[in-house]
Amino acid sequence: MSDTPFATTPKPPYYAVIFTSQLSDRSDSYRELAERMVELAASQPGFLGLESVRDASGTGITVSYWASLPEIAAWKRHSEHLVAQQRGRSGFYTDFRLRVAVVESESALQRPS
Amino acid sequence: MSDTPFATTPKPPYYAVIFTSQLSDRSDSYRELAERMVELAASQPGFLGLESVRDASGTGITVSYWASLPEIAAWKRHSEHLVAQQRGRSGFYTDFRLRVAVVESESALQRPS
Repeated sequence: MSDTPFATTPKPPYYAVIFTSQLSDRSDSYRELAERMVELAASQPGFLGLESVRDASGTGITVSYWASLPEIAAWKRHSEHLVAQQRGRSGFYTDFRLRVAVVESESALQRPS
Repeated sequence: MSDTPFATTPKPPYYAVIFTSQLSDRSDSYRELAERMVELAASQPGFLGLESVRDASGTGITVSYWASLPEIAAWKRHSEHLVAQQRGRSGFYTDFRLRVAVVESESALQRPS
């Protein structure tokens, strides 16, 4: 990905998928799978960007940005992603929330450069 | 707040404010201010919940959930919050993104209990 934690997204509207999760398994296999999913998501049609943070207690928020609902649905159905989702549900996560939202406005820190 | 990292939100639609930030200052004064803002936000009309994660590098994502746009606007204009925003812009953060979105759907991990 990039060396900034911020996604550069187009003028709204576009979609955000807000994924909040509690990890039970901080193994290398989780990390490798998560990295692979970010890489794979970034290659999907309609992908606009991704912001992701996980703290030392295993709580994470990942927000991915998409051009349209059908493209979000297609990513959800991607065969390799389906396998990852199953591993998430059956073990990696103790809990999660997934919200799909339409971004209506965006602003950023403005500072004299 | 609660002992779960997850916000319990009503049936959509409702609003999400997605705040992604890079912290330059990990001082006690930042932490105290951030905790005060969470406490204050939670007492505002229309507040539905909040999820927040910051990692060791200072990257954070905070998503707060609200019933309506006017209530988000009122919180943005709250006098104590305005002072905090100014401190954020002038020093605590090296950068941030703020996105306002309408949550259209929500799901959670379902596991036999």
